[in-house]
Amino acid sequence: MEPDRIIADLAAGARRAAAVLAASRGEKRNAALLACAKAIRDDADRLRSENSRDLARGEEFALSRAMVDRLTLDDARIEAMARALEQIAAQEDPIGRTISACNRPNGLRVEKRRVPIGVIGIIFESRPNVTADAAALCIKSGNACILRGGKEAINSNLAIAAAMRKGLDAAGLPAEAVTVLESTDRELVGAMARAEGLIDLIIPRGGRTLIRAVAEAATIPVIKHYAGNCHVYVHAKANLGMAERIALNAKCQRPGVCNAAETLLVDQAVARRFLGDIAPQFASEGVELRGCEQARAIVEMAPASEEDWSEEYLGLILAVKVVEDIDEAIAHINTYSSGHTEAIVTDEVQAAEQFVARVDSSSVMVNASTRFSDGEQYGLGAEIGISTDKLHARGPMGAEDLTTCKWIVTGNGHLRQ
Amino acid sequence: MEPDRIIADLAAGARRAAAVLAASRGEKRNAALLACAKAIRDDADRLRSENSRDLARGEEFALSRAMVDRLTLDDARIEAMARALEQIAAQEDPIGRTISACNRPNGLRVEKRRVPIGVIGIIFESRPNVTADAAALCIKSGNACILRGGKEAINSNLAIAAAMRKGLDAAGLPAEAVTVLESTDRELVGAMARAEGLIDLIIPRGGRTLIRAVAEAATIPVIKHYAGNCHVYVHAKANLGMAERIALNAKCQRPGVCNAAETLLVDQAVARRFLGDIAPQFASEGVELRGCEQARAIVEMAPASEEDWSEEYLGLILAVKVVEDIDEAIAHINTYSSGHTEAIVTDEVQAAEQFVARVDSSSVMVNASTRFSDGEQYGLGAEIGISTDKLHARGPMGAEDLTTCKWIVTGNGHLRQ
Repeated sequence: MEPDRIIADLAAGARRAAAVLAASRGEKRNAALLACAKAIRDDADRLRSENSRDLARGEEFALSRAMVDRLTLDDARIEAMARALEQIAAQEDPIGRTISACNRPNGLRVEKRRVPIGVIGIIFESRPNVTADAAALCIKSGNACILRGGKEAINSNLAIAAAMRKGLDAAGLPAEAVTVLESTDRELVGAMARAEGLIDLIIPRGGRTLIRAVAEAATIPVIKHYAGNCHVYVHAKANLGMAERIALNAKCQRPGVCNAAETLLVDQAVARRFLGDIAPQFASEGVELRGCEQARAIVEMAPASEEDWSEEYLGLILAVKVVEDIDEAIAHINTYSSGHTEAIVTDEVQAAEQFVARVDSSSVMVNASTRFSDGEQYGLGAEIGISTDKLHARGPMGAEDLTTCKWIVTGNGHLRQ
Repeated sequence: MEPDRIIADLAAGARRAAAVLAASRGEKRNAALLACAKAIRDDADRLRSENSRDLARGEEFALSRAMVDRLTLDDARIEAMARALEQIAAQEDPIGRTISACNRPNGLRVEKRRVPIGVIGIIFESRPNVTADAAALCIKSGNACILRGGKEAINSNLAIAAAMRKGLDAAGLPAEAVTVLESTDRELVGAMARAEGLIDLIIPRGGRTLIRAVAEAATIPVIKHYAGNCHVYVHAKANLGMAERIALNAKCQRPGVCNAAETLLVDQAVARRFLGDIAPQFASEGVELRGCEQARAIVEMAPASEEDWSEEYLGLILAVKVVEDIDEAIAHINTYSSGHTEAIVTDEVQAAEQFVARVDSSSVMVNASTRFSDGEQYGLGAEIGISTDKLHARGPMGAEDLTTCKWIVTGNGHLRQ
């Protein structure tokens, strides 16, 4: 079948399901999530065996050890997946809340109310548990979803979707609310991005090439989740001990994730002392430094190329640049950052305020590690990802960000004069 | 010059201006709006003479009388334009407000704060006062804008922009915050829609062809403002007198605007009485009816074709369909509506609730005319338009919808465990 036809058929089913979910009670959607958790546990054997099929093909896709690790579903991870669904069930219902309401002078009642978006397409390349998390957040917020995971996890993803559909069915909600594409053909991604009137929103997470391709093909709204090129800026008035701990934590605590730091900016006033002190600690953590000329005059390290300033290493490499002042730090960030998360370490109120006001990223940290930028840490519960876009959702996206609003206007025969 | 190059140059200036506006105080932006109002009044002679040049070319563009009327700037309209700027200056500042904030258990302070979006492109085809309104809402919300109006109003639009730039300059804000494209070449619209990293959002208002072209070319976020195919549904349990008054008001009070009704749906239980009573009233208002077979069996009218159900007449024509029940009414609306505004007339609570919950449009009216769907009537103040999209903004868009958020996280040396 033609890709457009496949997507149109699936989306038609998803739209019917979305209409049922939108009109459903929160307790029914929560019951479905609990039933999904049960189905995931009941299907543990099947999930492991389908996962083994994916793992067996790992060599074919030339997966690194880290990727194989992320792909693997063991008992602990299956249990964690089920628990995550139960936690989402326990969260507050984002649907039906009044955003604002007033009585107008003419007696008309105007209410702005949260409602589901409809059908959401999510494209991801990472761990299979994203299938369960993303589907669960969509169910919670009354949306249907069409999920397209990576080819290396296709059997695991389909098995998880089958369990979720069992859960929906057990709770009396339509199974078509959750679909994982059976083929990972790239043309289907294009067809999703063009499915105007069928899919309301598409969220691509992960690789730059994939996200760009989706954004370019799309005629429907896209919320892009680029990985993070996060910065730590050590200000002239920083507590240098705190700055060292934050820079080390931001880079080394979990280097493979999007909120880890990729570039360290150091004010020239403290560069000699700070870099001299921190360089041996990075070395003992196995971090390779790549610096500007000034940094290299202080500590021996490889030279940083222009590409290094934009690079998201997701590994034990750190770009280092000495800046003249806060203006240069902010200008550097606004030029090279992916708009994810940036941190300043400073004791000076004015510097913190300047940094917060002028850095154009979704999260700005003052005296804290970039690693805190995540939905759980912000108190949002599970997240669908971290938006590096500015429209509709910016930063960690929770269930509430999968909603839109509807204006409900109640009169008593009101006519416009 | 190449279209991409022209837009890149203008957008670079706009971005520099946007950074200044984003860091500016509300009182400065308000002072600029008042200075813009003064400049509009001071320039009244020039505005009228530039407007005359546009009007003189009206025949060349084959403008209808209604279009010539909308294009004309007289003293009263120039004064109204200046007053609208003063009203926007008096509105609350949408920037810097805390959307939510909390202290996390680990002592980290997490705040979600409203900030400007950056550079906004607005494409419109209507009256020249849109130039002043749109620019003013962008200034109010700390954004720079690049405006592209219709070719029939180019001289008027450029003269208004010149006055706005004088006002910005007088208040010490960069004039580059407001730009009207000097050429209405369609290729520039495409270039705007592809200006990733330069323009943050593009808002096309007006004609379906233009909006589709923008959505298809765009790699940056688009908020579409389709005109309205609005419905009035007369339920079986409606107060028929109220239903008549609402249907007449929705169609006839100002037929050329987007929140006027285009299709009347009548429940079969009341169709004979209702249509019999209202038909002569529509006739005396000069409204042409086009109906389904059942409607034509009750009242003599032209047959409605499939296209009529999707049509936005913006004039004195009304499509009429008799429906079996509320389910058919909702299904018809969700199939043919542009998602703008729909009204139900009913005395039955359950019917009103069903309609509100299941109609997938930005505004849903109960016992009120569709004509109330507008920012002023909803208490939002001036509006940038009415979004028929679901993402970021839905329904009347005020200054607050021209903002995004930033997460500000404050610690005291916090490290992730």
